[in-house]
Amino acid sequence: MTANKPARLVVLLGSASDLPVVEDMAPLCERFGISHRVEIASAHRQPDRLRQVIRESEAAGADIFVAVAGMAAHLPGVVASLTLRPVIGVPVAVGALGGLDALLSIVQMPPGVPVATVAIGKAGARNAAVLAARILALGDPAIAAALAAYREDLAQGGR
Amino acid sequence: MTANKPARLVVLLGSASDLPVVEDMAPLCERFGISHRVEIASAHRQPDRLRQVIRESEAAGADIFVAVAGMAAHLPGVVASLTLRPVIGVPVAVGALGGLDALLSIVQMPPGVPVATVAIGKAGARNAAVLAARILALGDPAIAAALAAYREDLAQGGR
Amino acid sequence: MTANKPARLVVLLGSASDLPVVEDMAPLCERFGISHRVEIASAHRQPDRLRQVIRESEAAGADIFVAVAGMAAHLPGVVASLTLRPVIGVPVAVGALGGLDALLSIVQMPPGVPVATVAIGKAGARNAAVLAARILALGDPAIAAALAAYREDLAQGGR
Amino acid sequence: MTANKPARLVVLLGSASDLPVVEDMAPLCERFGISHRVEIASAHRQPDRLRQVIRESEAAGADIFVAVAGMAAHLPGVVASLTLRPVIGVPVAVGALGGLDALLSIVQMPPGVPVATVAIGKAGARNAAVLAARILALGDPAIAAALAAYREDLAQGGR
Amino acid sequence: MTANKPARLVVLLGSASDLPVVEDMAPLCERFGISHRVEIASAHRQPDRLRQVIRESEAAGADIFVAVAGMAAHLPGVVASLTLRPVIGVPVAVGALGGLDALLSIVQMPPGVPVATVAIGKAGARNAAVLAARILALGDPAIAAALAAYREDLAQGGR
Amino acid sequence: MTANKPARLVVLLGSASDLPVVEDMAPLCERFGISHRVEIASAHRQPDRLRQVIRESEAAGADIFVAVAGMAAHLPGVVASLTLRPVIGVPVAVGALGGLDALLSIVQMPPGVPVATVAIGKAGARNAAVLAARILALGDPAIAAALAAYREDLAQGGR
Amino acid sequence: MTANKPARLVVLLGSASDLPVVEDMAPLCERFGISHRVEIASAHRQPDRLRQVIRESEAAGADIFVAVAGMAAHLPGVVASLTLRPVIGVPVAVGALGGLDALLSIVQMPPGVPVATVAIGKAGARNAAVLAARILALGDPAIAAALAAYREDLAQGGR
Amino acid sequence: MTANKPARLVVLLGSASDLPVVEDMAPLCERFGISHRVEIASAHRQPDRLRQVIRESEAAGADIFVAVAGMAAHLPGVVASLTLRPVIGVPVAVGALGGLDALLSIVQMPPGVPVATVAIGKAGARNAAVLAARILALGDPAIAAALAAYREDLAQGGR
Repeated sequence: MTANKPARLVVLLGSASDLPVVEDMAPLCERFGISHRVEIASAHRQPDRLRQVIRESEAAGADIFVAVAGMAAHLPGVVASLTLRPVIGVPVAVGALGGLDALLSIVQMPPGVPVATVAIGKAGARNAAVLAARILALGDPAIAAALAAYREDLAQGGR
Repeated sequence: MTANKPARLVVLLGSASDLPVVEDMAPLCERFGISHRVEIASAHRQPDRLRQVIRESEAAGADIFVAVAGMAAHLPGVVASLTLRPVIGVPVAVGALGGLDALLSIVQMPPGVPVATVAIGKAGARNAAVLAARILALGDPAIAAALAAYREDLAQGGR
Repeated sequence: MTANKPARLVVLLGSASDLPVVEDMAPLCERFGISHRVEIASAHRQPDRLRQVIRESEAAGADIFVAVAGMAAHLPGVVASLTLRPVIGVPVAVGALGGLDALLSIVQMPPGVPVATVAIGKAGARNAAVLAARILALGDPAIAAALAAYREDLAQGGR
Repeated sequence: MTANKPARLVVLLGSASDLPVVEDMAPLCERFGISHRVEIASAHRQPDRLRQVIRESEAAGADIFVAVAGMAAHLPGVVASLTLRPVIGVPVAVGALGGLDALLSIVQMPPGVPVATVAIGKAGARNAAVLAARILALGDPAIAAALAAYREDLAQGGR
Repeated sequence: MTANKPARLVVLLGSASDLPVVEDMAPLCERFGISHRVEIASAHRQPDRLRQVIRESEAAGADIFVAVAGMAAHLPGVVASLTLRPVIGVPVAVGALGGLDALLSIVQMPPGVPVATVAIGKAGARNAAVLAARILALGDPAIAAALAAYREDLAQGGR
Repeated sequence: MTANKPARLVVLLGSASDLPVVEDMAPLCERFGISHRVEIASAHRQPDRLRQVIRESEAAGADIFVAVAGMAAHLPGVVASLTLRPVIGVPVAVGALGGLDALLSIVQMPPGVPVATVAIGKAGARNAAVLAARILALGDPAIAAALAAYREDLAQGGR
Repeated sequence: MTANKPARLVVLLGSASDLPVVEDMAPLCERFGISHRVEIASAHRQPDRLRQVIRESEAAGADIFVAVAGMAAHLPGVVASLTLRPVIGVPVAVGALGGLDALLSIVQMPPGVPVATVAIGKAGARNAAVLAARILALGDPAIAAALAAYREDLAQGGR
Repeated sequence: MTANKPARLVVLLGSASDLPVVEDMAPLCERFGISHRVEIASAHRQPDRLRQVIRESEAAGADIFVAVAGMAAHLPGVVASLTLRPVIGVPVAVGALGGLDALLSIVQMPPGVPVATVAIGKAGARNAAVLAARILALGDPAIAAALAAYREDLAQGGR
């Protein structure tokens, strides 16, 4: 993904070590025609930077945030507390619990501040891109058309 | 929720026994100004009826589906395979496994067909309404304003 | 397994990546004298193709379906909603949760639409073949005899 | 269920305390026209009695065994080792682990001796009856017709 | 606990509904001679208020924070990202997962920002008070003496 | 271990593939002076052979059985139903669930027929030998002395 | 159970609140003719008292210890580190994790210091008494006879 | 870490095999200016040595103990029962359960004897050093300054 330019979809990683998890997102976003950008900002180690990234992203036109994190994965929930845009959370399997820790830390958000959670790991990251396309397609016929073509490919056995 | 009329948000339950889970959604939808409707259609017992409900809901202008289910909770994933609209999945705790079965059955969707999963039970159902508002607010300033006011209330200690 | 010919046992995979899971089924089916066939049809990406495969398989004499899937493993349950034949579900361990997600997604079917679930992975796939033989042996003395010989082999320490 | 008479379906309980779990099976069996009988025989406390019940049931024409058990639920697997008929296992939630212990003890059978596992508790017991009907319908048009009518009822919203 | 006055120990709750969890902390703090105060501030609904409470508490002399939360329990980790004081996290069992979600959300903090996690629920809250006393006793002989007397009571069978 | 001779301790494996799990038992048994023997007998595939092995082992003076099994690990419980000697169960991690399936299948025995369960895998197998020594030491001063020496070695940092 | 007199079986509880868990042990011990006694001694709050109870019990002829504990259930393992007699561990379900915490804390002992673990709760406590009888029967024909009669009762359907 | 000299932080391992888990602690302690030492003492195999190490460490000025253990990880709790200093527990993933056994064995301590639990494995060990620095910083301005500089580094993207 290209960084540091306006983007409708902003992918936030708690750590650069999570970059391989999202590597399939860029081609999907390009297929759907969604401008996108990756930022690394830890909820715990860089709380001020995280606030700033979200503020600037919103100012630059971000519509959706995808937040990717492992272990006690607070990033998606913290992002959701700092924006009113839809936030998609991708749990990462780090260490020995198979990502169950990250999944529960992301999906079990208390009432008022939702995170749209998808599957653990790379499968989830890919689906985050598709879910973003479904959301943006509500107001964007070009994305809707790309999504329909994508579904057709899947039905033909493509991935 | 009022049934049988056009609605931007359609809530699908696998069984009428899940109605109490969604009882807090109607006031939230009304607060956000989102028209809504509840339909009961089992993915397994009524696959044809489910297809028809989705087709008719889309024709009547549905933007988002919320699918609520317990146990081997296939309803959200099956709905996501039948529409290109965003689908929000709410796991229900039925029986003795505390909803972990429903959560994994909903969130672990394979690549291509995402479900935006929220927390187990009533907390998740409430967040499904808020997440729908966040999605629709992208294209609807009135909902965006209602959402901002809602966040203000939460910050004041309201729920 | 030989594809595209009449078969009493039809094995459905959600994805070609699950083929190694079922590789021990063909020799077992041949030993029991059960005609068999493998089809790949995703419940989520190819819902229409799946309906067609089931309809055509039934027309061609299929008695039993074995459905193999990982993650949010909806395939077995969806198949069971589309046929009245017995459906055997084989959970696959994909990703980091060890197949627990697939197991719960398959076994915890709500009342009315059962899936006969077996163990996770290749051990389960083998047992799916044996279970199919036990079912078909009720009406087929040749299979019953083959099954009795198989049990004898197991008792002698064979696998 | 009526005891002590010939039956195509024999329900085995490890303990009389599991009787409430199977209370919905009798009306379903009657609807499908499947003769049935309940026997109580513990795999651990009454291994000789269990062998005798199975031998006598088979002699009297039993086609399918349903074995119901909680905790370290060995009954279904032990029954499967003593008969070549299809064995359906129903896990029961006893104590504090929510039936996960029973589920894993039943479903994770090693290769060669399968148990067709259904959901935990009463939902699973009901599905055991429906699964038995699906199996017996392969050779019995009356049961097949009853099953089709049952599916029709489910599609109409009945349970 | 008395609110709104200087306190060495500040207990933060995400929601007033968690008050019963901490009800045994006040007598323990009083026994150890530790001034204490309870504040309610949600990490997600009131992120700005939370920052302010922490800043003011530190200015008023807070040495230790105890953060109590259920579900996706981010409060302790977020507090730990906003202060350099020791943070003790108490997971609460809300809903059907028995507090496992909260436990993993609190204890699995990534490197750099630790939370000292104690047991789920009221037992953990009591131990949070004792752990705070152990920490403060390093620099406060009166607390050390009270702690030694407390241990003596425990050894005599007291709780 | 030497097979086919009288032994106070008989180790039963459900499958030859479990032999590596017990490889540390022989040196421990020799150290404690406990005669021992390994037999392979599956509870499910070889129920008759299993009964015979137990009967013959008892006739030849077996005092304790150690039963080792993975997945739906019924062997220890079935052995305990066929003998009145103490039975020690060792769960084995087979497949993707990490041995949790085997552990619950062994330890959660219903009242009346206990299995003395030890840890999963090789650590558990070693402890099975030590537990057997503790049991036999009650009536055998030589074993008691060997056990005391072993404890002394452990205290010196030996394993 | 009668306290403060010589006993072959000593039941150790971490807390008086665990007394109901062991209430079925006394009649079983009496049936088997095993003298028994209950002591309350916490591994964590009363480490010195625990050492003394074990030392005195051994001096008074204790052959077997049964240790009962919940949560981070260290009592059985600590007892096993302080004696060379067989130690039977009974996990108790305290709080919201259903006893899984106690089970793993007891059964997963590292090599060298085994605990013979039985099922969670009252079922496990009963089996602790039966397991003790199986152990003592190795050297005591009267207990062996009582055990054989007990098995006969179980086979007749008694509990 | 340098052994056998006075240290404010004493790291206790149940086994030398856990040494790699703590290898990142020494540079962190040095950065914070905390004298430290590693001792190996098993709670189960060397209970007397463990008591002595704790007694001598306290006499030599130890302020905090970090106890590292896997499986039924009793070491942290036993240490906490033998000292009144703060005890930090680090669960280690040994074997197939991913460290969940160790985590629950450490964190679920009963009331009165707390262990400050951190994440499983090396991430947790690093955080144990940071948590110790936060505790000692309460009474040591140099450590407080080092901690503030460390936080600054984290905010700049350092680890």
